[in-house]
Amino acid sequence: MSEQLVIALDTMGGDWAPEVVIRGAALAQQRFPKVRFLLYGPEERLKTLLAKHKALQGVSDIVHTESVVRAEDKPSQALRNGRQSSMWQAIEAVRDGRANGVVSAGNTGALMAFAKFVLRTLPGIDRPAIASFFPTLKGESVMLDLGANIQCDANNLVQFAIMGNVFARTVLGIEAPQIGLLNVGSEDVKGDESLREAQSILRDTEFARQYYGFVEGDDIAKGTVEVIVTDGFTGNVVLKAIEGTAKLYAEFLRQTFKSSFLAALGYMIARPALRSLRIRLDPRRYNGAILLGLNGIVVKSHGGTDAFGFANAIAVAVDLVANKSIERIRQDFERLTHRPGPDSEIQSAVV
Amino acid sequence: MSEQLVIALDTMGGDWAPEVVIRGAALAQQRFPKVRFLLYGPEERLKTLLAKHKALQGVSDIVHTESVVRAEDKPSQALRNGRQSSMWQAIEAVRDGRANGVVSAGNTGALMAFAKFVLRTLPGIDRPAIASFFPTLKGESVMLDLGANIQCDANNLVQFAIMGNVFARTVLGIEAPQIGLLNVGSEDVKGDESLREAQSILRDTEFARQYYGFVEGDDIAKGTVEVIVTDGFTGNVVLKAIEGTAKLYAEFLRQTFKSSFLAALGYMIARPALRSLRIRLDPRRYNGAILLGLNGIVVKSHGGTDAFGFANAIAVAVDLVANKSIERIRQDFERLTHRPGPDSEIQSAVV
Repeated sequence: MSEQLVIALDTMGGDWAPEVVIRGAALAQQRFPKVRFLLYGPEERLKTLLAKHKALQGVSDIVHTESVVRAEDKPSQALRNGRQSSMWQAIEAVRDGRANGVVSAGNTGALMAFAKFVLRTLPGIDRPAIASFFPTLKGESVMLDLGANIQCDANNLVQFAIMGNVFARTVLGIEAPQIGLLNVGSEDVKGDESLREAQSILRDTEFARQYYGFVEGDDIAKGTVEVIVTDGFTGNVVLKAIEGTAKLYAEFLRQTFKSSFLAALGYMIARPALRSLRIRLDPRRYNGAILLGLNGIVVKSHGGTDAFGFANAIAVAVDLVANKSIERIRQDFERLTHRPGPDSEIQSAVV
Repeated sequence: MSEQLVIALDTMGGDWAPEVVIRGAALAQQRFPKVRFLLYGPEERLKTLLAKHKALQGVSDIVHTESVVRAEDKPSQALRNGRQSSMWQAIEAVRDGRANGVVSAGNTGALMAFAKFVLRTLPGIDRPAIASFFPTLKGESVMLDLGANIQCDANNLVQFAIMGNVFARTVLGIEAPQIGLLNVGSEDVKGDESLREAQSILRDTEFARQYYGFVEGDDIAKGTVEVIVTDGFTGNVVLKAIEGTAKLYAEFLRQTFKSSFLAALGYMIARPALRSLRIRLDPRRYNGAILLGLNGIVVKSHGGTDAFGFANAIAVAVDLVANKSIERIRQDFERLTHRPGPDSEIQSAVV
């Protein structure tokens, strides 16, 4: 990155705010020494914390806020009362050009509501989606929506597909990602009306070559496609089911290595290799969900993560900024909506 | 089991039919020496196979069928042309009282269509569901629907809850299983209308004490509840996502133990313990999905399983028969629908 890049942080979001946010920012500062930070939160408390992180202090400005969005606040309630909160103010920094992106570990519903209200959606996009990436047999994939939209129509799904495609190209660095619609079978007749309609629209756009078809639940881990598109209900349940399964297997493995003397000995000997496996599967590495489809970069960190996890969420924001992902999503939607020819059905489907 | 118990087998279903079915039946015969088998399939071929399994031969009768439902047949197509197939005939054996249950590794859609047509649903149940069980941190849970009903209304979900409850009591042997509705959050406002309505109905029935509330995707592996109720779309995607994740982790673990000399040595030493882990997580142990809500016991085996897996599917059918699960589902629905009092809303919701 040649130009100065600024990330706004909602220091009061998440279970261990603001300590974890500041320690996460300090880790991120080591990885991205040229990035500057705008820290939204209680000035005195942040000053005390920053005193322990001199390098971070040198690249940070504090913007004092007192109000905080709580984890239990409903989005509507937060929208009414939250304008002076660290979360809202940090998002406004992006709108006003003072920051290139914002990271928060706070209330997801409020973050989405604020971001939509303050930043607005990009032209051609009806609803933003939450996206994140997953380890697969072949590398990494991105899945969306992970919970922003409980019910989705065909146009929403098509828009998610195009946004996910840009995300896979910019953040995962995949040249021509394949897109799949999550379904209960691969045949054309499977799924509900909106899935079938989304498939027929995608086959008709210029993204047709990147559209793979319907994929099933096991295709996520197989890495059959790099972009998995689904409604926010299914995506949220699947995301958490995968996390739960991963924890279950890790726990079973832990119990196994404690089950006998030989098992414990084998563990000791294989420990370096098992440690790299743990690093590879560390959920903190996959921390940082993106609110895609907005006029600005908004990254949601898991509320319960630690400094290492929060630093990874910052890294996702930095990647998105450095790769000009918003500009690329905008361009892709412009190409779709301003294409010549009488293809009004597709145009209206996307617009 | 004191009385004679007969299981009908569709020997022509699954990827390795009829060999795997016969070898699976032979394994099941060792576990359940008093069970008799009705084998539906090509007589000469089955006779040749049975010649290698004398004990099984002694408790089996062959019913000759020539026609076969193929994996790619659509349910409607199979319903028109499949009346002479091994699958249809085996289901009729249950209807006519010649068998107590049927097991097939064939086409799921056709099996469900045939079973609904031949056996009919139980009084009070609009739609049957597919149920199966999962390993959890606390033991095992049952989840349904896993794919029979892509869209479900509140009454469907309530019926699934009651059927799943009986299943958990009979097959898993849990005295008072807790029921959860799979959702994207635990708050009352989460999810769509049918989930919220199902929750309010369940809280109003005599099953209220066994109704836990909304659960999320990670609650499946945690074992928060013993019965997880969801629509067939979500259930199918989640089932396969969990299977895919399990395979991904097993593969990562395999790669880890091959990644260095020490890792391989550690593996050798810990091998007995790791072998019990593999046995514990063996997907074949969880083979045998149940078509719940029918006037008869129908168990679906995975099409790609081996003899050990197929034997487990037979074991599920034997368990269901031995525990009189159909009778108990019938009773539970009668209690609900014939209860005294003016509670017509609940009655109509369930009927």
